[in-house]
Amino acid sequence: MSETTVHLGPNKYGKAENRLVRVTRHGDRHEIADLTVTSQLIGEAFAGSFTSGDNSRIVATDTQKNTVFALAKEHGVGAPEDFLALLADQFTSEFDWVEGGLWQAEVHPWERITVDGQPHDHSFRRTGTGTRLATVHVEAGERHVTGGVKDLVVLKSTGSEFHGFPRSRFTTLPETTDRIMATEVTARWRYLPSAVEAGIAYDALYEEVVAVMLEQFATVHSLALQQTLWEMGRAAIELRPELAEVRFAMPNKHHFVVDLSPFDLTNENEVFIAADRPYGLIEGTVVRDGVAEAPGAWEHLPAFV
Amino acid sequence: MSETTVHLGPNKYGKAENRLVRVTRHGDRHEIADLTVTSQLIGEAFAGSFTSGDNSRIVATDTQKNTVFALAKEHGVGAPEDFLALLADQFTSEFDWVEGGLWQAEVHPWERITVDGQPHDHSFRRTGTGTRLATVHVEAGERHVTGGVKDLVVLKSTGSEFHGFPRSRFTTLPETTDRIMATEVTARWRYLPSAVEAGIAYDALYEEVVAVMLEQFATVHSLALQQTLWEMGRAAIELRPELAEVRFAMPNKHHFVVDLSPFDLTNENEVFIAADRPYGLIEGTVVRDGVAEAPGAWEHLPAFV
Amino acid sequence: MSETTVHLGPNKYGKAENRLVRVTRHGDRHEIADLTVTSQLIGEAFAGSFTSGDNSRIVATDTQKNTVFALAKEHGVGAPEDFLALLADQFTSEFDWVEGGLWQAEVHPWERITVDGQPHDHSFRRTGTGTRLATVHVEAGERHVTGGVKDLVVLKSTGSEFHGFPRSRFTTLPETTDRIMATEVTARWRYLPSAVEAGIAYDALYEEVVAVMLEQFATVHSLALQQTLWEMGRAAIELRPELAEVRFAMPNKHHFVVDLSPFDLTNENEVFIAADRPYGLIEGTVVRDGVAEAPGAWEHLPAFV
Amino acid sequence: MSETTVHLGPNKYGKAENRLVRVTRHGDRHEIADLTVTSQLIGEAFAGSFTSGDNSRIVATDTQKNTVFALAKEHGVGAPEDFLALLADQFTSEFDWVEGGLWQAEVHPWERITVDGQPHDHSFRRTGTGTRLATVHVEAGERHVTGGVKDLVVLKSTGSEFHGFPRSRFTTLPETTDRIMATEVTARWRYLPSAVEAGIAYDALYEEVVAVMLEQFATVHSLALQQTLWEMGRAAIELRPELAEVRFAMPNKHHFVVDLSPFDLTNENEVFIAADRPYGLIEGTVVRDGVAEAPGAWEHLPAFV
Repeated sequence: MSETTVHLGPNKYGKAENRLVRVTRHGDRHEIADLTVTSQLIGEAFAGSFTSGDNSRIVATDTQKNTVFALAKEHGVGAPEDFLALLADQFTSEFDWVEGGLWQAEVHPWERITVDGQPHDHSFRRTGTGTRLATVHVEAGERHVTGGVKDLVVLKSTGSEFHGFPRSRFTTLPETTDRIMATEVTARWRYLPSAVEAGIAYDALYEEVVAVMLEQFATVHSLALQQTLWEMGRAAIELRPELAEVRFAMPNKHHFVVDLSPFDLTNENEVFIAADRPYGLIEGTVVRDGVAEAPGAWEHLPAFV
Repeated sequence: MSETTVHLGPNKYGKAENRLVRVTRHGDRHEIADLTVTSQLIGEAFAGSFTSGDNSRIVATDTQKNTVFALAKEHGVGAPEDFLALLADQFTSEFDWVEGGLWQAEVHPWERITVDGQPHDHSFRRTGTGTRLATVHVEAGERHVTGGVKDLVVLKSTGSEFHGFPRSRFTTLPETTDRIMATEVTARWRYLPSAVEAGIAYDALYEEVVAVMLEQFATVHSLALQQTLWEMGRAAIELRPELAEVRFAMPNKHHFVVDLSPFDLTNENEVFIAADRPYGLIEGTVVRDGVAEAPGAWEHLPAFV
Repeated sequence: MSETTVHLGPNKYGKAENRLVRVTRHGDRHEIADLTVTSQLIGEAFAGSFTSGDNSRIVATDTQKNTVFALAKEHGVGAPEDFLALLADQFTSEFDWVEGGLWQAEVHPWERITVDGQPHDHSFRRTGTGTRLATVHVEAGERHVTGGVKDLVVLKSTGSEFHGFPRSRFTTLPETTDRIMATEVTARWRYLPSAVEAGIAYDALYEEVVAVMLEQFATVHSLALQQTLWEMGRAAIELRPELAEVRFAMPNKHHFVVDLSPFDLTNENEVFIAADRPYGLIEGTVVRDGVAEAPGAWEHLPAFV
Repeated sequence: MSETTVHLGPNKYGKAENRLVRVTRHGDRHEIADLTVTSQLIGEAFAGSFTSGDNSRIVATDTQKNTVFALAKEHGVGAPEDFLALLADQFTSEFDWVEGGLWQAEVHPWERITVDGQPHDHSFRRTGTGTRLATVHVEAGERHVTGGVKDLVVLKSTGSEFHGFPRSRFTTLPETTDRIMATEVTARWRYLPSAVEAGIAYDALYEEVVAVMLEQFATVHSLALQQTLWEMGRAAIELRPELAEVRFAMPNKHHFVVDLSPFDLTNENEVFIAADRPYGLIEGTVVRDGVAEAPGAWEHLPAFV
């Protein structure tokens, strides 16, 4: 019998979930940026740490953490896509054996507390569902940049139907022309490399893209959650020329009409029970016609999106 | 040796976390109420189910669930305190052996999605930190009603000091005259029984109490998180005569100044790392002078608050 | 109008969830203790920190944290009840204004990894559901000690019935003589003060109490989850004379028989769907006859138990 | 300006997290299988539901759910890989337009409760960290099958070093020749297609693979977490010829030696604080030499693994 031998496949390593809060003072007026930042490095030079415990090229995960905080001091944070690009440049330029990496950020939203009708200078309230996402991925000479949002929970109490689906041995679902539709949107959009190079006003883009997605969710009369997803993605791409494609994961958070007939009560879509599990799960991608595919952009990202 | 014998002590039972969504239609304009409702019953008559599996007086937890949804249809939901009172009345009047119970609600906040600058008629976005709480507790002939809030995450980037504390063998903490103060407020306020009887506009009260607490958090120059807690409770009680007392649990969510001196960088409260655990935990009660104590009001409530 | 005035009610403060891992070496053989420890102090002297930000008596929460780790070094950990008593003694003796406090521990279970059929000397695998609990509460001159367990998830696939409950307008639940019964046990037992003083072999007691509770869950033919709870508590108290009372919170984790009749399939308690919410929630206390009541023992503990 | 147009990229849809409990009776002896099953379908025919709300080919997610429970009745569950293959065959054969899909399972572990020293016939305790994973992915004429494990938390209190890493401007980490190493293993292994066709005894394989991974974790004297990962994967592949490759995600769950020197106490790796965030995150793949690559096997799987 010949000996079994193995080799190293895809890998990366780093420090995950650095909880960075950056305060910027403009006199008495403070701005805060609150991010969870993950840094991971990619390169052939790291193979030795796996195969023989050779750390001579291992930029310690602790060093990666320090770099996150030090760069936040030196350069500020700004848009998360820009801050991650800064990290990517730092690591790939400081260590010539670092070929690339994946840098990810989640941005936690805050708003100013209102005092006497005015937004306060230095006191904030955590808001929202809606966590902003960003990634920069460098590998094999390519750089991919994405923005996104998660935890965006939305519901419409009418304007959603579901019927016309095939009925088979295992089909029991009745058709409906009026139901609650609720979902928790996770979306990631890939920026066109040419737009990244030219420079993007990421913060404004984020606000616009989330707003147009919310509008589509609200106004599309939906025959399927898939259709709503599609229209949200299409509208975002039509709105902003920087977007190459948008990936969505949208659970169908079921709200079941409670059967009140045993109690001699009618229930015309008035009383619902919100279910936890199971839930529908729709994942889909809307792609601008004519852009080059970039499968590498997605392979390291968490989950489908 | 004498035989060991036992008896039944405090108990209650019911159905927890009924996920109720109630839609109310005013023509094309929909309102939604989204609550998690728990119903539990108390009474001597239930002892037999423990000691001998005698269910002849056990109002099934499934029946309690059905009652929640049926009453939401018949009466609507309104303020959570009112809806829970309705449940309390229903169970104690329908079954003469039900002596009391604990009814709890969490209200999940939504706002209308903006379309063309206008709030949409039937499409909503889940918002905020800040889950509204309510309880009605009936036992031993007394009825206690509380309101509250949880998940209210706030941060101030200055205006907080901590010094003057005693130094002992195990003290290493440096004093500070400027730090980030962040917390996640859980508060429950007990309404005066006389005010409950007279009727309270709970929804308006909730908005006002949360607003004044946020204002106090923002404007009190804080020497200790305890002091901030106290001022938040005091302001709420001064604002609304219906409040007998307010209980708080407020973690001190530490934000540590990152030591950047090894990198020849200064850090004047600019770059922080947000820590998860351990965290400070301050619990305190602010009580209106002159009101009767009501220890029974708190004994069944989750956690300190 | 007379001025509104307020006073300070129940309060405590400290450092929560200190993640302590203590390694003890016996030559090559290592033991590990993995605990989450919370320390909070109680005393009149702390009022000033609330009412005026006077920290002159505030033992900093950071100092409390340091004390947890330092005492773990000096004395080892041992049984969590003993370690918490050590903390209680330390704080109340070191600072004469500390009147009491609440000290809590969760013990995370590990087992040795098996190598060549033998338990390894220094390598461990986190195991189990079943987190051990302990508290020491000192207030108003009284000391209460409890042990407990949480996250103990159990299921029996038969030997459980539920029928004979009253049927009212809102009752739809069918009766059953055979169902799955599943729960996640949280239990806290209060030790008799006299037994605490005499000294208790807490570790052995914990193993015995959990074992007898599991046995009761398995062997009691159950007519109601309440009855199972009662028999678990009774057996524990009968087994160990140190126990004054046992409090339980036991959710009824529903497993519904899936209706397969539309598919021309029978389902004789073979295929179930496990539901998340809502769930039944049974809370009850089993008390040894003849012991003095101790309501103060429970008022600061999280949730019902 | 030319009009912006878009097309549909990668997508799938279905029902997620069906909580299936299957009881099998052998006389008085019951077996239970407890799985969370996700079913999602892939095919060109589903495009219309996105682009125009055409549901005429949409196998409703509710129908997918029903199929999971019905097949569990008709065929039992057995090894999760086999049960998922059954689902894959059912959907792709019942509907000629279903080209493929992704089917995933998590298996929740239970053990029998011990009564009088014997494992009980029908009463069980949820055990362990260590959730078994399986996936079957069918797309573009290929079928990929994986097994795996997650939530496998392990710790060694010695036998781990970390030194020899490069020191740069942002490096502050001291070198160590003795540290705690702790991680929570997530691993997925891809089976060789030829082995899948020939038939695999998945249950036995799972036990063996987890056991050998645990042994490697325990016995490898580790110079880097990467090295431990590598040796775990190598040993698994050497042990079982059915494995083509193993992917790991292994967080480095940091345990920091507490500095007790301010208290005149030594701390020779005795007292640690377990940190939550940030944490190291090592991801790597060990591949059997000579097997064909299968990037499609991984593209739909959650996270790196």
